[in-house]
Amino acid sequence: MTTVTDALRNGVDTEKLFATLDLIKVQPELARFQFRATNRWIDGAHNRSTIKGFYAAGGEDTSRAEAFELDAGEPAILIGTDTGPNPAEYLLHALAACLTTSIVYVAAARQVQLTSVESTLTGDMDVRGALGVDREPRNGFERIGVAFRITGNAPEEKLREVVERAKRRSAVYDMVTNGVPVAVQVETD
Amino acid sequence: MTTVTDALRNGVDTEKLFATLDLIKVQPELARFQFRATNRWIDGAHNRSTIKGFYAAGGEDTSRAEAFELDAGEPAILIGTDTGPNPAEYLLHALAACLTTSIVYVAAARQVQLTSVESTLTGDMDVRGALGVDREPRNGFERIGVAFRITGNAPEEKLREVVERAKRRSAVYDMVTNGVPVAVQVETD
Repeated sequence: MTTVTDALRNGVDTEKLFATLDLIKVQPELARFQFRATNRWIDGAHNRSTIKGFYAAGGEDTSRAEAFELDAGEPAILIGTDTGPNPAEYLLHALAACLTTSIVYVAAARQVQLTSVESTLTGDMDVRGALGVDREPRNGFERIGVAFRITGNAPEEKLREVVERAKRRSAVYDMVTNGVPVAVQVETD
Repeated sequence: MTTVTDALRNGVDTEKLFATLDLIKVQPELARFQFRATNRWIDGAHNRSTIKGFYAAGGEDTSRAEAFELDAGEPAILIGTDTGPNPAEYLLHALAACLTTSIVYVAAARQVQLTSVESTLTGDMDVRGALGVDREPRNGFERIGVAFRITGNAPEEKLREVVERAKRRSAVYDMVTNGVPVAVQVETD
């Protein structure tokens, strides 16, 4: 029983986590992943993404029984009907979720039992950029603020170290802070 | 009736859109927006964001009756239980949704009636970075591919122009390609 309890920390199966890390060290080609989303316009600011398949560890994943569907929209002031969070809000969620999962996994690997992880994210935007009214403001957020509140069975210094390590490992934090090359192709028939 | 039909193009109220643009040109301080998300860890790779309030046009928005809730997760191979799309997939959705809405709004403003907008996004990642196995691969996607298929009542060249203009106006495309400064604060009690 002790072994089981030790292996499952913060809801993360650390035995499986360390086995995965060991396997990838020996066979780095298994670390090639490709994630995907398909999106379809519905009406106005309403569009929907479907997310299911991905490539991982040398083959196409088949573990997901159902696709996830995500609806996007805009609030009335941005000429939408609130059919979902808007795309910039989805980006804040992606960042919050990735930092949080990174914190939880890093803590599990370092034997820190967390009690709570909460965060509030804010993104400041001058919408003259995205609306094409003025060339000076950028289209996206000028800055993003992330405020974490974390509790667990470790001293403050250790909890802060976990957050620092999570920042250095988070996929979305890397992408949002450093940017990613994006290639857009268009077919019109 | 003709006026109503003309004003509503691609599901976008173009009269309201142009009135908004005119207002912001005269009162640029109304263009200050702040979007937000709050996130709470649930267990393992499962966390949930709540999205409702935002600041816009000189005050706190009150038009949303209900909050949006978004659940994130990881698939089994990344030590999760598929409680939702993973954070990197959410980023692909944010990008797809923003480019699509930008295309739809730009087309509406340019009197292009769209029939369909579909896209497939792919993000390639070497997970040795995010898992901390190797320092060389970056944590996030090395590259993102976006393939659009667009149809509407305009020649191919015009449809391609709409996509180009949308890329130059999209908030999330700007953030994902150029990056955003992110400030992380931590409280531990």
